[in-house]
Amino acid sequence: MIPSSVPHPPSSFSGHRFRAVYHLLGDEPTARARAEDICIEETIEYPPELVPEGVIRTHVFGRIESFEKIDNGRYRAIISYADEITGIELPQLINVLFGNISMKPGIRLVELDLSGTLLARFKGPRFGIEGVRKLLGVEKRPLLATATKPMGLSASELAQMAYQLALGGMDIIKDDHGLGNQTFAPFEERVLRTVEAVAKANAQTGHRTLYLPNVTGPFETMLERIHFAKTAGATGLMLIPGHCGLDFLRRVADDETIALPIMSHPAFVGSYVLSPDFGVSHRVLHGQLLRLAGADFSVMPNYVGRFASYSREDCVGIAEGCTHPMGTLRPIFPAPGGGIGPDSFADMLDVYGRDVVYLVSSNLHRASPDLTATTARFRERLEKL
Amino acid sequence: MIPSSVPHPPSSFSGHRFRAVYHLLGDEPTARARAEDICIEETIEYPPELVPEGVIRTHVFGRIESFEKIDNGRYRAIISYADEITGIELPQLINVLFGNISMKPGIRLVELDLSGTLLARFKGPRFGIEGVRKLLGVEKRPLLATATKPMGLSASELAQMAYQLALGGMDIIKDDHGLGNQTFAPFEERVLRTVEAVAKANAQTGHRTLYLPNVTGPFETMLERIHFAKTAGATGLMLIPGHCGLDFLRRVADDETIALPIMSHPAFVGSYVLSPDFGVSHRVLHGQLLRLAGADFSVMPNYVGRFASYSREDCVGIAEGCTHPMGTLRPIFPAPGGGIGPDSFADMLDVYGRDVVYLVSSNLHRASPDLTATTARFRERLEKL
Repeated sequence: MIPSSVPHPPSSFSGHRFRAVYHLLGDEPTARARAEDICIEETIEYPPELVPEGVIRTHVFGRIESFEKIDNGRYRAIISYADEITGIELPQLINVLFGNISMKPGIRLVELDLSGTLLARFKGPRFGIEGVRKLLGVEKRPLLATATKPMGLSASELAQMAYQLALGGMDIIKDDHGLGNQTFAPFEERVLRTVEAVAKANAQTGHRTLYLPNVTGPFETMLERIHFAKTAGATGLMLIPGHCGLDFLRRVADDETIALPIMSHPAFVGSYVLSPDFGVSHRVLHGQLLRLAGADFSVMPNYVGRFASYSREDCVGIAEGCTHPMGTLRPIFPAPGGGIGPDSFADMLDVYGRDVVYLVSSNLHRASPDLTATTARFRERLEKL
Repeated sequence: MIPSSVPHPPSSFSGHRFRAVYHLLGDEPTARARAEDICIEETIEYPPELVPEGVIRTHVFGRIESFEKIDNGRYRAIISYADEITGIELPQLINVLFGNISMKPGIRLVELDLSGTLLARFKGPRFGIEGVRKLLGVEKRPLLATATKPMGLSASELAQMAYQLALGGMDIIKDDHGLGNQTFAPFEERVLRTVEAVAKANAQTGHRTLYLPNVTGPFETMLERIHFAKTAGATGLMLIPGHCGLDFLRRVADDETIALPIMSHPAFVGSYVLSPDFGVSHRVLHGQLLRLAGADFSVMPNYVGRFASYSREDCVGIAEGCTHPMGTLRPIFPAPGGGIGPDSFADMLDVYGRDVVYLVSSNLHRASPDLTATTARFRERLEKL
């Protein structure tokens, strides 16, 4: 039983609240019931009728700030929550935004509108668009990125591939997300050889190609791999939040001793966005949450290519989530990939703007065995956009 | 370009392969194309026509082992993968099973059939059903569990609640998953007071009520919180893999210096299961993957209660995923909750069997302000099942 007295000093709650926007399926009473359910399920998760008047009811309950019809069968609700119920910790913030209700149908988290006070407690991306452009010495044009692959090549072969790509003027080379610590291309050997290969190419070309190894792995090894990569000379990192958790990405981004740009890979998290009727919007999943956690690049499927499940509108949402004002958090690069090529570059510019990373692999390899020449040609196309 | 020579010693690949079962939407050509796509997307993620004959084609490519019709518009494929492409690391194993294809529609991962060689590399649950029963001294009956809540109570109030619940003979008391390190009930104070309260009740009753604090939080703090809880006398832990990642759960389960039973909470991961047309099956998400990672309990929505999105059949799948033979991995407890009460106990027994944890909170609080009496009554109901 809840004591009816108010045990908290008034200072437990500042009155600051953050907001989240949900789409709710159903007719008006159904959708409204879903909104009311969110206010309880995401906070006290307890019979509301048993909670007396007082601090919990006033501050801890979610609060419907607005509720409006989108069309027949779909409503839009803005719900606010007290900053303090998150404990100012990212995992608990996500619990509040979309914890238990992730298991309920007809509810989609479509946008975050965090308060200034809460946002100010997160550092966000260390580099962001501006910081990455400075590292690369590239002011305005879209960036070109690729991955070394296929899995199964040896560390030497992957490094040799990176060398050819860097020679052609590739801006960013990352490990394929499937490269972990397999016997055929062990992590440390792969990183050492690839760092060396990219540095050699950079010395020849004067470019500043970045190399971002995939440091996702068992938790006993990740910080070790990260520091190994940094010490070896890697100029960025790739993490897969679907495996390491968004908060691990935040922890790495916040760490002064690491201080490298972070690319986030979306493996394992696609199920959140695939249905418009539940889950999390593309904007939130591939944009706002990653930016809150501190990613500098969001790798994502593109509307043209082999991930036909993402629409042009979805991708616009991601680009906005990556770049639209969000407190003092730096804007970050959307990095669309998945079967794109130069034929899509111009059209993609309309969707993403110039602050975009074109992640091209399959079509680069398909074009010619001469990866250096193809990279140079793709980059030229991109410089002329 | 891929060298046509075979650079790997034959020993890079043992020939051991594990299998995964997928449901694929579409007519036969569409579904078959999806199966073929999985073989590439989850492994080399590279144009297959550019890969010459050799080790990569033979070993690294996924392989369709069977393909059969379920009904019009749905097919079932079994796809095998070489053990070695996982690097024997859980994050990369999940990449292979359901990494990039999580972003593609019409593909659902419905069951894991890992090879003995791969499974043998994972320790799995440290306690499992048998180990937890030994800790509790309860041989055969279903177990009764609850959470202290609502969020907003002080540490003292939560501890007092735990005391009342333990006095009534509750088997397991966990923190509500929304309890992190909020100012109104800070983690350390909450754990210290609750451990003390439960120990006091145990001393009075002779029961061995377990207390599992939620140790999920920022990555800088989690191991600290875990060791604090262990030192304080907590007799189990709760983790939320949606935030900390499945591999962090594995890391904690594997750690000899922790050695406490682990309850997994499903916050934030519901979107994987909600559509039968994509994502991951209930069996895999709430059963097999958790068991592989080493959870001893899988908290999950029940088919009766406030998560109406889970069907009886879904819950049977979870129970099977938790308990059906899976190499040498111990079977674990499904812990259905979300608005259940004694009226459902008997029916739930048909679905889960006796190796189940009934997670009851709201209906326990609704029944009476006397939590001790209600707990005793619920437990009595359960002992008579």
